[in-house]
Amino acid sequence: MTELIAPEPCDLLIEAGFVVPVEPHGVVLENHAVAISEGRIAAVLPIDEARRHYAPGQVVSRPEAALIPGLVNAHTHNPMTLLRGIADDLPLKVWLQQHIWPVEGALLAPDFVADGIVLAIAEMLRGGTTCANENYFFPDVQAAVYKRHGFRARVGLPVIDFPTAWAKSDDEYFDKAGEVHDQWRDDPLIATAFAPHAPYTVNDPNFERIRMLADQLDLPVHLHLHETAQEVQQSQEKYGQRPIARLERLGLINDRLIAVHMTQLTEAEITLCAERGVSVVHCPESNLKLASGFCRACALQRAGVNLAIGTDGCASNNDLDMFGETRTAALLAKAVAQDAAALDAFASLRAATLGGARALGFGDRVGSIVPGKQADLACVDLSALETQPLHHVVSQLVYACGRQQVSDVWIAGQPKLVERELVDIDIGAVVANARQWRTRIASIHRD
Amino acid sequence: MTELIAPEPCDLLIEAGFVVPVEPHGVVLENHAVAISEGRIAAVLPIDEARRHYAPGQVVSRPEAALIPGLVNAHTHNPMTLLRGIADDLPLKVWLQQHIWPVEGALLAPDFVADGIVLAIAEMLRGGTTCANENYFFPDVQAAVYKRHGFRARVGLPVIDFPTAWAKSDDEYFDKAGEVHDQWRDDPLIATAFAPHAPYTVNDPNFERIRMLADQLDLPVHLHLHETAQEVQQSQEKYGQRPIARLERLGLINDRLIAVHMTQLTEAEITLCAERGVSVVHCPESNLKLASGFCRACALQRAGVNLAIGTDGCASNNDLDMFGETRTAALLAKAVAQDAAALDAFASLRAATLGGARALGFGDRVGSIVPGKQADLACVDLSALETQPLHHVVSQLVYACGRQQVSDVWIAGQPKLVERELVDIDIGAVVANARQWRTRIASIHRD
Repeated sequence: MTELIAPEPCDLLIEAGFVVPVEPHGVVLENHAVAISEGRIAAVLPIDEARRHYAPGQVVSRPEAALIPGLVNAHTHNPMTLLRGIADDLPLKVWLQQHIWPVEGALLAPDFVADGIVLAIAEMLRGGTTCANENYFFPDVQAAVYKRHGFRARVGLPVIDFPTAWAKSDDEYFDKAGEVHDQWRDDPLIATAFAPHAPYTVNDPNFERIRMLADQLDLPVHLHLHETAQEVQQSQEKYGQRPIARLERLGLINDRLIAVHMTQLTEAEITLCAERGVSVVHCPESNLKLASGFCRACALQRAGVNLAIGTDGCASNNDLDMFGETRTAALLAKAVAQDAAALDAFASLRAATLGGARALGFGDRVGSIVPGKQADLACVDLSALETQPLHHVVSQLVYACGRQQVSDVWIAGQPKLVERELVDIDIGAVVANARQWRTRIASIHRD
Repeated sequence: MTELIAPEPCDLLIEAGFVVPVEPHGVVLENHAVAISEGRIAAVLPIDEARRHYAPGQVVSRPEAALIPGLVNAHTHNPMTLLRGIADDLPLKVWLQQHIWPVEGALLAPDFVADGIVLAIAEMLRGGTTCANENYFFPDVQAAVYKRHGFRARVGLPVIDFPTAWAKSDDEYFDKAGEVHDQWRDDPLIATAFAPHAPYTVNDPNFERIRMLADQLDLPVHLHLHETAQEVQQSQEKYGQRPIARLERLGLINDRLIAVHMTQLTEAEITLCAERGVSVVHCPESNLKLASGFCRACALQRAGVNLAIGTDGCASNNDLDMFGETRTAALLAKAVAQDAAALDAFASLRAATLGGARALGFGDRVGSIVPGKQADLACVDLSALETQPLHHVVSQLVYACGRQQVSDVWIAGQPKLVERELVDIDIGAVVANARQWRTRIASIHRD
């Protein structure tokens, strides 16, 4: 039969041995292609059909690879990538008070923020991450750097009860938050969120102000919550309430809330989070490394809570490896739930992609390979002997694959990594800059 | 001043930006060289001194790398690498009874064992592992394959209370064990150990026979022990004793014992293991993935127990990545001990090298970079942006480094990996063979 319909133009056709769309759940499409036009996914279809139907401007063929949605790192402090491994294996209080805070006190400025984020973007792209939920000071600088590199991010607008290099008073925190929000309100890549630091560093009036403004501006609230048992205990001593109960009183337990860590949860709190549409960002490696506790990731997921995954900052991880983090989440969930079927490979990959996207309020935009969504994609080479034999694609992605197997990355259809090479970042310059920071940091930090 | 002494010949001089000798503990030597002659470490000294003192046959210069002892994977079932990811996210009983055992029942034969081990050796070398404690059937085949590839191994002589493709009766298990032991008793690379499967699959008379023979032949006893709470409970029901108490009654709690998993331990049991010189192999990722429980790695280490690290078999991990495993061990220990200072980076690296060597009875031979020991070494490139800035070498090795940063590996001074390329394994052939196994296994295994 003759083809009667003229081929439809598209900008890019990615042909992959396997496409893991995440939506629908549990599906692996063999020998499928993704057609991309104007930065969006136009279609997901078998390769032979795609070749008949489309006249692509470019074809990328990866017969040995799985094409997955770009990973969403749902909780980061990326400027701290410059502090990777600066002070490990220390009790939390010593780590913060004698190392991290003094170093940050000396360094916190736009150059530290910008250089740290560039290093982080390079690392994230090389590991298949296409979107970050950023939580640090100088969100104006963060937003500009992410934008310049075409990297998708939601940047936190920090609120904390004491002065920092970013702002000196409550009013200044809120004024600057408003300014940064205004500047980026209609950007296709960059968005903002309120980022009150934690229940123990933000007072009731500031939380109330955040609730009001978040509603008015339609913004998420990105918050460290129930990270440690001490946090919960201190809240009970100071407020007579656990932090979640206090936030409930303040009207913040709702579907705007991006609750990070959540290692201390009662059944009732899990139910409340599920009912209110709270998203939980699980940062297993940070929780382990700082001995914060165990997040009940499987219980949250089974209760219907939207579960996302984050690396936390590099100073408590010490990488931005979302493959490693997802694997740790999948492994740890089983031991914590005492159930080897907990948080299976598909559920873990979903948390690392669509779960993160939804937590960030980007669920209609990215997180799955679905027509109409932005083409934020990662290609993962499964031909390496470390993922052979290839009995199950998603098992290998979650339990065996290393981030170095990521070959190609696109954000909004733009190539950011091509055959392991960063497209628009000079890796030598990034490493050279990191070495300069090492020298500078060594001059102010002693073990 | 003129050099009056003629340079001393050596076979190989490895010059590294950093040498982490493991012994003495906690040391990083900057710009040091390791001189190697006849497969042994002749000296560890500053590069400039080495250049004056030695006339090497070959110089390998790695100014951006850390040279570490080759990693020792202290518990593996490497033929199962062919079953990587075959059946994940299942309760232990379903996993074993409905998937692993039927597949093994159909496949267990010399070709499966040999091909699985070749795939494993390639993966281990690419990840800096130079020695394995093997535990599977057909130890004769295992030993021959490890020997052929110049890979250091202690192969387990299996004993289990039911017939398998390897042996049909108690006597046959012991007869074959004796034969394999005899064949390899004086080999410089390959040694054997008794490998009774587990307390629940080996009866008292067989354990008694093992104790007697292990003493006579001076062999370690490699045993899964206290892996799960159910194992302990079943032992109490059947024998009126916890497995460790039962083994104590049978005379097996001693410095020959390589006790694997050990997730269920009382304080008294930890003290007993320390007093008797038992080595414990911690397999954190397997314990998590099968929801077996949490090994108290820090408590064991602080009690003075020799701690080693193993990946377990690929079917319950799903890789042979000792960098990843060591990192998981270091992270998990902190949360389990509720102490962020638990199992620090140096202690973790020590467990992955010298701890493993000592567990295997190879402590005088490998596991640290000390003159007189065999030159089992791995070079790890730290110039990658994922390990920048390089604030602390051992922190980056344990918490940030990926196994893909291993550039070079030597076993007994022989190069096995050079600039990421396997020296004597055809990686294309290994992958092609794994693909054939995938097809064969798919024909007998259905999800």
